[in-house]
Amino acid sequence: MTTKTNTLNEVNLPAVGALAAAIEGNPDKANTVWKASVTWTGGFRSEARVRDFSPVPSDEPAGLGGGDTAANPVEQLLAALGNCLAVGYAANASAAGIEIKDLRIDVDGDLDLHTFLGLNPDGNAGYQSIRAAVHIDSDADAGQLADLHSKVTGTSPVGHSLARPIPIEIELA
Amino acid sequence: MTTKTNTLNEVNLPAVGALAAAIEGNPDKANTVWKASVTWTGGFRSEARVRDFSPVPSDEPAGLGGGDTAANPVEQLLAALGNCLAVGYAANASAAGIEIKDLRIDVDGDLDLHTFLGLNPDGNAGYQSIRAAVHIDSDADAGQLADLHSKVTGTSPVGHSLARPIPIEIELA
Repeated sequence: MTTKTNTLNEVNLPAVGALAAAIEGNPDKANTVWKASVTWTGGFRSEARVRDFSPVPSDEPAGLGGGDTAANPVEQLLAALGNCLAVGYAANASAAGIEIKDLRIDVDGDLDLHTFLGLNPDGNAGYQSIRAAVHIDSDADAGQLADLHSKVTGTSPVGHSLARPIPIEIELA
Repeated sequence: MTTKTNTLNEVNLPAVGALAAAIEGNPDKANTVWKASVTWTGGFRSEARVRDFSPVPSDEPAGLGGGDTAANPVEQLLAALGNCLAVGYAANASAAGIEIKDLRIDVDGDLDLHTFLGLNPDGNAGYQSIRAAVHIDSDADAGQLADLHSKVTGTSPVGHSLARPIPIEIELA
């Protein structure tokens, strides 16, 4: 460990460590609530607002009846998984003293449209399977990278959210 | 049904109907693959590319060690759910001849940070529960809206993806 470790991969490890220490002192601090608010803007277009950030648009491809102006919700789901794995790699690599030179994560998933289109009402409208390919450029050896990978996949909030069933309540307010 | 139905809520119902008809003629056409590619940009920042759309940024809040420049991956997951429900409402309302005047969907979810932070390695890093509140302004009666809601929640690709376990393969490429 060198003094450089604190900013290895530009990751603010002290902030992560301070949060972990605060949670060890008071486990309730680990209970977080996250939010998003979506406004429909006509057709299959909508905008999602998170905190004070600019709204992010959503649409469907023309073949699905959309205006093809933005990624659609199932693509956004894959993007969220890739982004989550990137955070996990950055955090765990920094903690292990591994420098990441470059990192790209390609995600894809298989989805049968029958249920979404009302052609199989009791079927699964969601993804049947999802794959992510992690392309990392690093001088770490294969064993270190395998350990890193194992840590990241074992602690990924979006990865676990997709791999496990989540109780969801959707209500007309 | 009036001639206006084709563009009710600005939804291109003929395109949706043409896709459904094509799939009824050839069920293989329902097998779709969706993709996203994420590039790490330093710290906890990354960008997700979908098709030819502009990359969408991702970051973490300062309390989690990020630069606080964009919604984080677990917020993006909630946004994807809200956007998906908006598409479902627009599609199913249009098919039922219901005009939507306004539609907003607020989503939130509970997440315990212990596992993400490495404080409970075998635990669940993902959402424990997710709630969506649908605020719709429409002249349709309560029964019509309840039917609509039931159709939307029963056919939501992102809703089903979160509610059901998905086999996920994450590999070092």
